Amino acid sequence: KTILVAGGAGYIGSHTVVELLNAGHRVVVVDNLSNSQENLVYCLAQQTIQYSFVAENVCDLERLNLVFDSYNIDVVFDFSGRKAVGESTLLPMLYYKYNINGTMNLLKCMRQHEVRDILFSSSCTVYGAPDQEALPIKEDDSVGCCQCPYAKCKYFVECLLSDLATGEPDYWRIMVMRYFNPVGAHESGLIGEDPKGDPLNLLPKLAQVATGKRPILDVYGEDYSTVDGSPIRDYVHVMDVATAHLRAVKHFQDISGIEIYNIGTGEGKSTWDMVKAFEAACGKPIPFRVCQRRPGDVPAIYCDPSKAERELGWKAGRSLKQMCEDLWRFYVLNPNGY
Amino acid sequence: KTILVAGGAGYIGSHTVVELLNAGHRVVVVDNLSNSQENLVYCLAQQTIQYSFVAENVCDLERLNLVFDSYNIDVVFDFSGRKAVGESTLLPMLYYKYNINGTMNLLKCMRQHEVRDILFSSSCTVYGAPDQEALPIKEDDSVGCCQCPYAKCKYFVECLLSDLATGEPDYWRIMVMRYFNPVGAHESGLIGEDPKGDPLNLLPKLAQVATGKRPILDVYGEDYSTVDGSPIRDYVHVMDVATAHLRAVKHFQDISGIEIYNIGTGEGKSTWDMVKAFEAACGKPIPFRVCQRRPGDVPAIYCDPSKAERELGWKAGRSLKQMCEDLWRFYVLNPNGY
Repeated sequence: KTILVAGGAGYIGSHTVVELLNAGHRVVVVDNLSNSQENLVYCLAQQTIQYSFVAENVCDLERLNLVFDSYNIDVVFDFSGRKAVGESTLLPMLYYKYNINGTMNLLKCMRQHEVRDILFSSSCTVYGAPDQEALPIKEDDSVGCCQCPYAKCKYFVECLLSDLATGEPDYWRIMVMRYFNPVGAHESGLIGEDPKGDPLNLLPKLAQVATGKRPILDVYGEDYSTVDGSPIRDYVHVMDVATAHLRAVKHFQDISGIEIYNIGTGEGKSTWDMVKAFEAACGKPIPFRVCQRRPGDVPAIYCDPSKAERELGWKAGRSLKQMCEDLWRFYVLNPNGY
Repeated sequence: KTILVAGGAGYIGSHTVVELLNAGHRVVVVDNLSNSQENLVYCLAQQTIQYSFVAENVCDLERLNLVFDSYNIDVVFDFSGRKAVGESTLLPMLYYKYNINGTMNLLKCMRQHEVRDILFSSSCTVYGAPDQEALPIKEDDSVGCCQCPYAKCKYFVECLLSDLATGEPDYWRIMVMRYFNPVGAHESGLIGEDPKGDPLNLLPKLAQVATGKRPILDVYGEDYSTVDGSPIRDYVHVMDVATAHLRAVKHFQDISGIEIYNIGTGEGKSTWDMVKAFEAACGKPIPFRVCQRRPGDVPAIYCDPSKAERELGWKAGRSLKQMCEDLWRFYVLNPNGY
């Protein structure tokens, strides 16, 4: 199949592209490189003739239509959009503009070119602050009480997709994947997460402390009502996330309308679990200091991923150890990013 | 003050424009006339030099910017966007595109031209299906479980505005008005509601039955758990709604960030109340038949409007009788619409 991957030069996008190419699919990446690296893209482009790269912004409808004219697209994977929670609070218009319009443009081009299959990258942040008694989270738990513009935009696009599926259930075949906390890197160490600006997630910060780029790890709160007092999250290896997308390609034929999947391990791990696992992976102690809780941080969030296992035959198989070791390998091989 | 009224040729917009002009404000209407009438616009334009009309779509950012360049805008009233609940379910993309982007373009132009004051027309549909025990609805009751794309778009724009206010609380002065069920027409009978296509609301349907344009009134359900079995709504005279906007003009100076107001009478009236009041107004019996409930219709919804009274000094004063009489006068004077 020919798969258009919007945002395919980004973190989850690039790992997914590699899996798609390995499985023999043709891939057309559309990415404006606003938070990703051309190097990776050229590196991929040399690997295979199955791969094309188009440096466009999905928000440019005319040029996006030209991409659909040029390639015979079967499936769209939509990883487009900005993804920094903090930035979204400071610059909400940026998020409301790009993170909704990009997907809308993809949908318009799809409709015009009779493409029916789209997978949208959503996020566990659509669940807002979940009822701590009701964990693990299931796909039909309530959504929408989102904490930041980033999460709200994910929720809005989910609403749009669900309304499209209601309006034309015989046309659209839509999958929504709600990622929990994707971490790690490709086993080769060649691709990984190389965010521009300040990394806001725990694992990149751990790696920066280990390489000396960051003096100390800030741990936000140690008095949560969790097993060790630190927040619990559902960390999932980015290559497991990529595999979920590969499984999804075959699954569109079984869908009418829209299906939503939690993409996580189903196991909650604490900040201290991650610190220990990362110390073991990099062989160094990680200095830390405990700071105040951040507003909006929930004590625990982890998912029930059984729907993805049942329907896609997908299960996250990689351990915490692998997540940390693979991330560390990427940092050792790419001390200055790509 | 100079007030840009987006969607100023529409139902609530046009009544508000008349009130603004009467109060001595300068008004610039931007309307693409997709669901409104040029006649009205020209009629107004001849009345006063205080009025300008620009036939543009707020979704055209470049041309909207030219409007802001041409006039020295102090305040923006945003009535733009499509408003048919049923259409929004059939054509969700239309709503997600126009009803969000139009407002975003207004906000961008405002930022660029240092305009701070905006009033956004929202709707009681953002409350979704409210807890029947918790009526009347207050502004801080929960929102977001919306039933249709029209309502979701209203909710999304509210979220955007609220996030803007959070991001730049010292810049923006934002008012959101959640209208309940605006009905009636200007006392002159010269302007009123003249929707293109099938009117979906009770009052225009009653008028169509009375004029013979529609053979019979369909009443959707008579076994609701309400006082007379028919659904209860908070009907409010469109001229009262217009007055609320006039009051709002003076109130921007007291706002930092965002304030939300319920705009209704606070009194629930049933379908049968409306039928009786309209029969009295038009002097004819209204034939009806009872049909099945419509999915998504709630038994009762009415608001607590006391915040608007407290802060804006506004209270809906016109009776059910006036709503029906004014609407009927408009239909008698304009049997074929404008």
